[in-house]
Amino acid sequence: MSDRYRRGLDVAEQLANDKLAHFVKSGVAEIAPDFARMVIEFAFGDLYSRESLDLRSREMIAIAALAASGHAGPQLRVHVESASSVGIEKAEVVEILMQVALYSGFPAALNALADCHDLLTDDNCLTRACG
Amino acid sequence: MSDRYRRGLDVAEQLANDKLAHFVKSGVAEIAPDFARMVIEFAFGDLYSRESLDLRSREMIAIAALAASGHAGPQLRVHVESASSVGIEKAEVVEILMQVALYSGFPAALNALADCHDLLTDDNCLTRACG
Amino acid sequence: MSDRYRRGLDVAEQLANDKLAHFVKSGVAEIAPDFARMVIEFAFGDLYSRESLDLRSREMIAIAALAASGHAGPQLRVHVESASSVGIEKAEVVEILMQVALYSGFPAALNALADCHDLLTDDNCLTRACG
Amino acid sequence: MSDRYRRGLDVAEQLANDKLAHFVKSGVAEIAPDFARMVIEFAFGDLYSRESLDLRSREMIAIAALAASGHAGPQLRVHVESASSVGIEKAEVVEILMQVALYSGFPAALNALADCHDLLTDDNCLTRACG
Amino acid sequence: MSDRYRRGLDVAEQLANDKLAHFVKSGVAEIAPDFARMVIEFAFGDLYSRESLDLRSREMIAIAALAASGHAGPQLRVHVESASSVGIEKAEVVEILMQVALYSGFPAALNALADCHDLLTDDNCLTRACG
Amino acid sequence: MSDRYRRGLDVAEQLANDKLAHFVKSGVAEIAPDFARMVIEFAFGDLYSRESLDLRSREMIAIAALAASGHAGPQLRVHVESASSVGIEKAEVVEILMQVALYSGFPAALNALADCHDLLTDDNCLTRACG
Repeated sequence: MSDRYRRGLDVAEQLANDKLAHFVKSGVAEIAPDFARMVIEFAFGDLYSRESLDLRSREMIAIAALAASGHAGPQLRVHVESASSVGIEKAEVVEILMQVALYSGFPAALNALADCHDLLTDDNCLTRACG
Repeated sequence: MSDRYRRGLDVAEQLANDKLAHFVKSGVAEIAPDFARMVIEFAFGDLYSRESLDLRSREMIAIAALAASGHAGPQLRVHVESASSVGIEKAEVVEILMQVALYSGFPAALNALADCHDLLTDDNCLTRACG
Repeated sequence: MSDRYRRGLDVAEQLANDKLAHFVKSGVAEIAPDFARMVIEFAFGDLYSRESLDLRSREMIAIAALAASGHAGPQLRVHVESASSVGIEKAEVVEILMQVALYSGFPAALNALADCHDLLTDDNCLTRACG
Repeated sequence: MSDRYRRGLDVAEQLANDKLAHFVKSGVAEIAPDFARMVIEFAFGDLYSRESLDLRSREMIAIAALAASGHAGPQLRVHVESASSVGIEKAEVVEILMQVALYSGFPAALNALADCHDLLTDDNCLTRACG
Repeated sequence: MSDRYRRGLDVAEQLANDKLAHFVKSGVAEIAPDFARMVIEFAFGDLYSRESLDLRSREMIAIAALAASGHAGPQLRVHVESASSVGIEKAEVVEILMQVALYSGFPAALNALADCHDLLTDDNCLTRACG
Repeated sequence: MSDRYRRGLDVAEQLANDKLAHFVKSGVAEIAPDFARMVIEFAFGDLYSRESLDLRSREMIAIAALAASGHAGPQLRVHVESASSVGIEKAEVVEILMQVALYSGFPAALNALADCHDLLTDDNCLTRACG
């Protein structure tokens, strides 16, 4: 296990994201194991672990950029799930997605809200366990 | 002048952005005056002025989403110029653009860096006057 | 209820679109009620209600732009459903989607046709009730 | 000269567009002559010449779809220049570009307006000769 | 049947692609028969049949461009299915999709891999019959 | 200098691309030196150096994906300049760009041809020195 990979897993742990952990040994990993490793090494090990931005800012940026692209629903869900682990509230996620309408149009914003509907309905669900 | 427009100008003032002020009576305003007004009213008066996110977060989101789209160089420059007014340092802008490479590819990130090259070269220029 | 909202609902009524009416109190409205209101106020109240273009032209533009974006299937369906209310025939919708292939490629056009397949199969279904 | 090519040139003539005529023997034609021919044959000869939509509708669709894509400034200019030949007024072109902001965001609309600024400044220039 | 159509079917046969054959008389053909014909005539009859590139190169290009666009899952599947008929191995398809991450970002590459997951799981399935 | 960086430079050398070499110490490197290094390490050191695809195939994929995105003119030029070093002829580059029209529309293909016009005019220029 490379240092970059270890650093990537450290970041993933701080994001407390089961989806991310699951990703390492799932679908993509099955057909493209080197690529799954590279995502952890490069995205999380190389970029996310840099200190110039805190993880809260990085997750806001991820949510904004993914919603803006219009075709990244699954990745958007992963980062919306991580949001609460770094102190981003649901109301803030909704606000980010609304702002994206300015830059990428209403369909991108509306589809992003729909893609994450279940993750954003219960006001408390992102900051504590949902019963 | 509508309340929404006034609220929009208030936000623009906090962003201390001459480009933005210029925009109100320039190019676009000349051929589409109602649209220039709507941008101020809707983008800044309706959305930016909401309290769920502070302006620092909103400008990070703007920079991320605009860079991610790949075709919004002029708008990206406006928001990179506003960044320092809300406490975002140049090194942070660079870091946001680097992170966008993950979601929209290297060309989008490289072109965003090139589009804002002059705004990002001098390390101090965004946080205090450049001589 | 603001004047802008009322004007937006007036337009929605002319589009005789249940989907649109439904939208006001549904999915998005549940997690982002202010955004659902803004869509009605801004999209329909501010822009669609302007007299420079008739609603038939506006719906053609909506269908063309949504299909061109490649990621707006749900919104495309809403506007294809409204098309008949403003005198656009099914054959014309198909023709618009075919033309979009020129600007955004065949996949965007083919996926738009597939997204609206059920709305476009019966020749009469858009201009009178389908039994 | 194929029938499809001749039909394409007929359409181009109705659009009274020097840019289009110029295109046939210019830049692209020099390095990709077969492609320049295919554009005339397929875009104008096969699609535009179909009777299901009149040329006025087709040009509205072209302007909407090209502005929506965000990266088609040169092609947008060609079609904005053709607009007056098929009875579309400048104020209508501006209105189409404003509406595109809904679907593709403000930057796409603002850049489209800027790309065509000189074509849209004089109120009369599209409907009669500019002195 | 035009010469262009016949040439298009010849290419389709070399791609040994049932999906493609199916496409001719299916969904899209039902609501837009002229468009289904044009796809065969223009895409396969006019472009693919040109000798400047062999079909193996053309399918690599198709897979790269479709994955890069981020919204062409169904078309990507058609071309990944054709890949083996022109000598492209599964490992090469995976490698193309990985490389696309550089130009269009990780989500486009990850979604392309997910869209074609079943076509890429069994190592032998593209080069000989799967039992 | 990391192994990954060294491997990246090796690939760059095979592409015999001055633009690429220039990139290492230029514009982007000035404001984002870590990012310039990461591009070499990740794009060329990690991905391009993998043996599953030869460099000729990789450059075809790069050209197709970059043209398809519609907003990567500068990067497209870099790879079109590298094309001849790996045995891709100008006529083949033109053919790739023509094929991209199918997937991303005519404007993307036409703009790609225009972006690389000077690199594609002289028939011999890519395969031997131009006087």
